[in-house]
Amino acid sequence: MTGQKADNVVTAAFLVIGDEILSGRTKDRNIGFAADYLTSIGIDLKEARVVPDEREEIAAAVNALRARYDYVFTSGGIGPTHDDITAECIAEALGVPLILDPRAVAILEAHYPPGQFTPARQRMARIPQGADLIENKVSKAPGFKIGNVYVMAGVPAIMQAMMDAIAPTLATGKKMLSETVPADMPESRIAERLAAIQDTHPQTLIGSYPQADNGKFTTQIVIRSRDEAILKAAAEDVAKAVAELSG
Amino acid sequence: MTGQKADNVVTAAFLVIGDEILSGRTKDRNIGFAADYLTSIGIDLKEARVVPDEREEIAAAVNALRARYDYVFTSGGIGPTHDDITAECIAEALGVPLILDPRAVAILEAHYPPGQFTPARQRMARIPQGADLIENKVSKAPGFKIGNVYVMAGVPAIMQAMMDAIAPTLATGKKMLSETVPADMPESRIAERLAAIQDTHPQTLIGSYPQADNGKFTTQIVIRSRDEAILKAAAEDVAKAVAELSG
Repeated sequence: MTGQKADNVVTAAFLVIGDEILSGRTKDRNIGFAADYLTSIGIDLKEARVVPDEREEIAAAVNALRARYDYVFTSGGIGPTHDDITAECIAEALGVPLILDPRAVAILEAHYPPGQFTPARQRMARIPQGADLIENKVSKAPGFKIGNVYVMAGVPAIMQAMMDAIAPTLATGKKMLSETVPADMPESRIAERLAAIQDTHPQTLIGSYPQADNGKFTTQIVIRSRDEAILKAAAEDVAKAVAELSG
Repeated sequence: MTGQKADNVVTAAFLVIGDEILSGRTKDRNIGFAADYLTSIGIDLKEARVVPDEREEIAAAVNALRARYDYVFTSGGIGPTHDDITAECIAEALGVPLILDPRAVAILEAHYPPGQFTPARQRMARIPQGADLIENKVSKAPGFKIGNVYVMAGVPAIMQAMMDAIAPTLATGKKMLSETVPADMPESRIAERLAAIQDTHPQTLIGSYPQADNGKFTTQIVIRSRDEAILKAAAEDVAKAVAELSG
């Protein structure tokens, strides 16, 4: 469904697969990257999940998310080691066989010195039947796309390169625009005004985000809308309220 | 259920609530913090989710997670503004009324100058009936605990203070221990050996994490177990394999 959708809203979920995130060993950076990236191209990230390297957990999450959202993007678990089980779990979730994909074999055979495309490395060529490959410019081993599920590597640099590879093929909606109004006050001081402004501008989403800087509370007010004029009108009302309350 | 559980495993999920994470405006740091924190006290984080500030999404996620895990920890959406809807959603999810909690009112009334405990600030005293409060040493407005659900602020400094407040009351399991063996090689070179070591030591979890540093691939191998002797034996086998393959 490349191109722009009729209702102007395209939704996605991001699924991080990996024990190392849940144990705290590795701090996830892929959700934040995907949130920025998808927002910038006109896809609304509606949910993110982190699940462990466990067969039933991965399959259940993929099936729950692919039924609810236009796209599911995953990161993690497609390397050559025994704990990389994402490809087989996706195949299982979608009810298709996992095959040694000739296209992936060709890419990896060309990448390794003769005789070094070992059984472990062949794991990275196991792809669910019927999937399209996602190019990996960084380390060659491809991701894949099957149905509305896009399966990418966990290493941020590789995941990001894969996002670049698939972005031109994705359907996008009308971009969500945003303006930020900083307020040098705790959010409780401006809360009632913001609620009234939100009521006056129902086609916007007004978010209030407190920050604690050296014990002093300030607030960032973020106004979001797909319509530039509506956004501007609401942001002006917010700026006016901030100015009045700062006086 | 304070104390140590009989089967030695206590599980948890972490739920981040907030449009700002899914839009990319704010990068979540609470999942990573909670992962480290819970691991260190003997609670296994088994799943994390990020959902938007939408009533049905919050309630559905809380109900799904509280049924599956010993504990659910949430962050975000308990401030004074119109977009802070977590307390009402949790009340709805648990089927209890949301009340103006006298204990929370007392804390906040004492905190603000006379006459400044405004209606917006009173929002922060709305707590599901039957909940216990969670102390907030940073900015006073309390979190709360109802059933196995712990509801905390989104601002990392406040969330972290709340974790400190509740940690002594949590049941914990036998701590998951870990050792890391670095390998100066791409993980595909050691993959077959790791699979064999994992088979030999079924009571461990062996994870292999590739890193790309300036175009050079190295690997961190993490062995985890709740049993120190089993952990040590497996880690020694991994270190031996790394040494042999490095030679």
